[in-house]
Amino acid sequence: MSVNKAHIQSFFMELQDQICTSLEKIDTKAVFKQDLWNREGGGGGRTRIIQNGHVFEKGGVNFSAVHGILPENIKHALKIEASDFFATGISIVIHPQNPFVPIIHMNTRYFEVGENTYWFGGGIDLTPHYVIKQDAQFFHKSLQKVCDEFKQDAYGAFKQWADEYFYIKHRKETRGVGGIFFDRLSANTKHTKQDVFEFVKLVGQAFVPIYSELVKRNKDTPFGKNQKDWQYLRRGRYVEFNLVYDKGTKFGLDTSGRIESILMSLPSTAKWFYDFKPQPNSKEAQTLNLLKKEVDWVGI
Amino acid sequence: MSVNKAHIQSFFMELQDQICTSLEKIDTKAVFKQDLWNREGGGGGRTRIIQNGHVFEKGGVNFSAVHGILPENIKHALKIEASDFFATGISIVIHPQNPFVPIIHMNTRYFEVGENTYWFGGGIDLTPHYVIKQDAQFFHKSLQKVCDEFKQDAYGAFKQWADEYFYIKHRKETRGVGGIFFDRLSANTKHTKQDVFEFVKLVGQAFVPIYSELVKRNKDTPFGKNQKDWQYLRRGRYVEFNLVYDKGTKFGLDTSGRIESILMSLPSTAKWFYDFKPQPNSKEAQTLNLLKKEVDWVGI
Repeated sequence: MSVNKAHIQSFFMELQDQICTSLEKIDTKAVFKQDLWNREGGGGGRTRIIQNGHVFEKGGVNFSAVHGILPENIKHALKIEASDFFATGISIVIHPQNPFVPIIHMNTRYFEVGENTYWFGGGIDLTPHYVIKQDAQFFHKSLQKVCDEFKQDAYGAFKQWADEYFYIKHRKETRGVGGIFFDRLSANTKHTKQDVFEFVKLVGQAFVPIYSELVKRNKDTPFGKNQKDWQYLRRGRYVEFNLVYDKGTKFGLDTSGRIESILMSLPSTAKWFYDFKPQPNSKEAQTLNLLKKEVDWVGI
Repeated sequence: MSVNKAHIQSFFMELQDQICTSLEKIDTKAVFKQDLWNREGGGGGRTRIIQNGHVFEKGGVNFSAVHGILPENIKHALKIEASDFFATGISIVIHPQNPFVPIIHMNTRYFEVGENTYWFGGGIDLTPHYVIKQDAQFFHKSLQKVCDEFKQDAYGAFKQWADEYFYIKHRKETRGVGGIFFDRLSANTKHTKQDVFEFVKLVGQAFVPIYSELVKRNKDTPFGKNQKDWQYLRRGRYVEFNLVYDKGTKFGLDTSGRIESILMSLPSTAKWFYDFKPQPNSKEAQTLNLLKKEVDWVGI
C-alpha cells in the first residue's frame, strides 16, 4: 500500500500523543494544555503547551495539518508551479527549568503540492546552556544510529546541514551542539516514498528516548543564581536565532499563521546582559568555545 | 558657512554628552559606562550604557561616526552609485524600572556618499507599557511643535511614517504610541541643508525635556507583580519588533557592526506568556486597544 497524506497525518497525530504523555510522566507535575485552532484557508492544528512544571519551564508540542491555495510569493520562494497544497507536521521546543538540562527542538513535516510534488523535512537539534561533552556525544550517536538505518552517508550530510542552519551569524556562534536537519526528501533511485517516511518516523520516535535520557542525567544537578542567569542569557541567543534567522518562524509570521503557536518556541524568560564576558576557563567560557560548526561530537 | 560633516559629528557628540549628563541627574544612582570602539573599515563610536539605576533599568546612548567603502549589497539596497561613505548619528533606547514610565527611542543620523549625495534621518517614538492618554498627547504635541518649526506639514507626514514603521505586523499592534520618523531629508527648493540640520538639532534637543517630563510624571507610581509582568510581556514585543522588523538592527547585524552596541536596544529581561489575554476593561486591555495606527494623539 502506498503512503498517502492520511497515513502521514495520522502518524504525526499519534506521535504528538505519545510525546506529550511521555513528557508529562517525566515532569510528574505539569500537564499539557491543548488549544485547537482552525486555519481560515483550510485545516488547523492542536497546540499543546506545558508550563511551570518540575522539569519543564515551558514547552510546546504542536501538531498541524493545513491545506489550501499557496500564496504567489511562497510558490515563487519554493520554485513550484502548482497551487493546491497540503502540509502536516509536528514541531517541538522544550525549555527546561534546570540550566544543566538542554533545550531541545524537533520538527518533522510533510509537504505536498499539486499531483506529483511532495517532500519530507525535519530534524532534531540540542541547545545546552552548558555543553556537556558526553551528553552531546550520546545525542549525536543516537541520531547517527537513526540516520544509518536510512542510508550510509545520511548522518554526515544531515549533521552538516544542522551546523549550517542553526548558526547565529551575528554572534559567530552555533545555537547549540547541532543535530540533524534535512529538507525536500522524496523518493529517488535508491529510496521509495515509504523508505523516506520510515526514516521520518524513526526521527520522530527517537525524540522521547533521547530527551528523557538527557533530562534524567541532569535534572537534579544543583545550580544557583549565576547558572540561572547564564541560562537566561543563552535563551536570549535562542530568541535572537528564532526571530532573526529561523525560516519556519519567518514563514509562519509572513503567512499570518497562528502567532501563539509559532512563538511558543520563545522561552518564558530571557535576559540580555550588556557585553557579558564569562570568566576565562569557567564552564560558561568552555561552552562558548564549543559553540562551533564542524565539531565531531560522535568522536569527541 | 555651509554645514559639513565635521559640524554634524560635533553636534552629535555634544548632544550625547548632554543627554547622558541629564539622564544621570534624573536617575540619581546609576551612571553611564562608556565603551570606545573602532570599526575595522574606518571610524568608530562611543557606546554608553546605564544599568540598574533608580529610574532606568537599562539604557543606551550611542554615538558613532564611521566611514569607508560601502559593500555592494548596501549600495544596491540604497540605490546609489558612489562607494565612499560617511555616517554619523546618535541612537538611544531607554528601558525604565517602573512599568508606568514608557520606553523611549530616539535616533538622529547623517549619511553622506560620494561628492554630492547626503541625507539626514531619524525620529523619536514612545513605547508605554501602559498607554496614558495625557502623556501620549504631551509627547505628540511636543513633537508637533518641533516639526512646525521646520515646515507646516512635517508633523503629519512624519507621524504617519512612524505609525507605518513601528508596526508589529504579526501581532497587528503598533510598538507603542508612535512619534515621528523621517529619512532621506536633504536640501530642496524650500530648505537648505542648514535648515534640515537645524530641524535634526531640534529633534535631538527635544529628547531630554520630553523624557524627563514623562519620567517625572510616572516614576513614583506604585506597581506590583502583575504590572511588572505586563512590562516584561511588552518588552517581549519590543524584542520581536527589533529583531524581526527594525531596519537599523538588520543593517547592523548584516554589516557586522558592533553587536553589543546594536543590541543594547534589547531589555535586560523580557518574558513570553503563552496566549496571554488581559482581563476585559483592564488597564492592559485598554492599552492594547490603543496600539493602533492613525490615532490622533494630539487631539485625543
